[in-house]
Amino acid sequence: MHPFDKAIQLTPIEENHYAGTTSPDYGNMVGPYGGITCATLLNAIIRHPARIGEPIALTVNFVCPIVDGDFEIEAKVARTNRSTQHWAVQMKNGGGVTTTATAVFARRRKTWSAPEATAPANLPPPETLSRQGLAFLPAWVHRYDMCFAYGDLPTEFDGGEQADSNTCLWIRDEPPRILDYPALAAICDCFYPRILIRRHRLAPCSTISLTTYFHADAELLKEQSDRHVLGTARALNFRNGYCDQNASIWSNTGQLLASACQMIYYRE
Amino acid sequence: MHPFDKAIQLTPIEENHYAGTTSPDYGNMVGPYGGITCATLLNAIIRHPARIGEPIALTVNFVCPIVDGDFEIEAKVARTNRSTQHWAVQMKNGGGVTTTATAVFARRRKTWSAPEATAPANLPPPETLSRQGLAFLPAWVHRYDMCFAYGDLPTEFDGGEQADSNTCLWIRDEPPRILDYPALAAICDCFYPRILIRRHRLAPCSTISLTTYFHADAELLKEQSDRHVLGTARALNFRNGYCDQNASIWSNTGQLLASACQMIYYRE
Repeated sequence: MHPFDKAIQLTPIEENHYAGTTSPDYGNMVGPYGGITCATLLNAIIRHPARIGEPIALTVNFVCPIVDGDFEIEAKVARTNRSTQHWAVQMKNGGGVTTTATAVFARRRKTWSAPEATAPANLPPPETLSRQGLAFLPAWVHRYDMCFAYGDLPTEFDGGEQADSNTCLWIRDEPPRILDYPALAAICDCFYPRILIRRHRLAPCSTISLTTYFHADAELLKEQSDRHVLGTARALNFRNGYCDQNASIWSNTGQLLASACQMIYYRE
Repeated sequence: MHPFDKAIQLTPIEENHYAGTTSPDYGNMVGPYGGITCATLLNAIIRHPARIGEPIALTVNFVCPIVDGDFEIEAKVARTNRSTQHWAVQMKNGGGVTTTATAVFARRRKTWSAPEATAPANLPPPETLSRQGLAFLPAWVHRYDMCFAYGDLPTEFDGGEQADSNTCLWIRDEPPRILDYPALAAICDCFYPRILIRRHRLAPCSTISLTTYFHADAELLKEQSDRHVLGTARALNFRNGYCDQNASIWSNTGQLLASACQMIYYRE
């Protein structure tokens, strides 16, 4: 079993309730990687017998740190319409609610479609770039093959500020795994907090809320298979303890698979 | 009383519960303007006796149309940490849940701060632009003074596609009102669905989920007073029934007050 599938594995315990266990394979500095939490919450909906359609939007709020070990997820339908379905989800662990989420799923139909934003062009392909060095990085980073075109973590945290926090990288699961919605949700959180890129200074920081929009329907997702996707991220603003991040995940042929934004708390 | 204050007015009915009534001043094609719903949900938290700090993030899911008339809001603390507080909110009306929301509030502290994105420059000031024509537009549009630098609704819905959906406008409440968090939350939804701008074709469409990040702390917000703010919006992608929108709201001096994204359902 791929470590990703093991990490998001859930056991139904009663109606709307699932049990799971955090995986050391996706450990972060404190508790599990946020992306694997997003994937696990999404998986609870995907597995739910009442679920219709594919994910469209997912918002995950990181209420407090998740303690390594067992957790429980409650996933409830707020309402099912003709083609859309709204969900309320929460994770409990260590005696309290650690994570809240809402999601929208939908049965999609063929309509007029067109891109507007475009992926960065003329990038070196992933096989010509070297994989990110993994020394000192938490376990979850080892579960991705990340090849940075630009915007990797600084080589030294020397306080030398840079003018922007733009990152562009090729990324895929390590070992390779065919892309599905939980994996895409997880990848949307793969970008290091923009405050670290911008300031070259280690300071406590953590995501407090993350919203992901799934532009890829099942057909487009299937085309991607296990190839690297392209990820881009930047911040708009840093102010008094909070900065944001806007990210886009593109197929290897330049189609938008997902866009995501998050708000990050930072100190100092 | 300003029509905005009347529209977001709430009466406490029991712990965590508030009653309100939709306002015809902010009516949309069907039910109330989404922005006024966001403002009203945020107001329930702001008024709540347990609330700490200022809004950081707000996600509102439009579950089904709100019926004009009375509604009830439940706003519950999911958890209060040392400096942050997580909320779960829902609106009921016409016999069911119409809207779900989550929010994060926080006590902000002075830290290193810096902008990264910049507001469009060299724009004509609002007083040199004419106010948007209001014929055929729903009530809520009349409650804003919108002056478009570019990207207004097309003058004819003739199916003549344009290459992008970029909009840039000056906007303030009509009549003028000092900007506060509910008003800022409402303005984040002021942009017409990008699909109408892009395609010059009227088709059924509606926001299904909207996330707003508040970059302005109370101090920055206060500086804005009742002057026009600058709003920019664009879509990243349109695909099989769903398109997104990324928006930013800037102070008249070019500081980022809020950023917002939404997913919109469209037909055909």
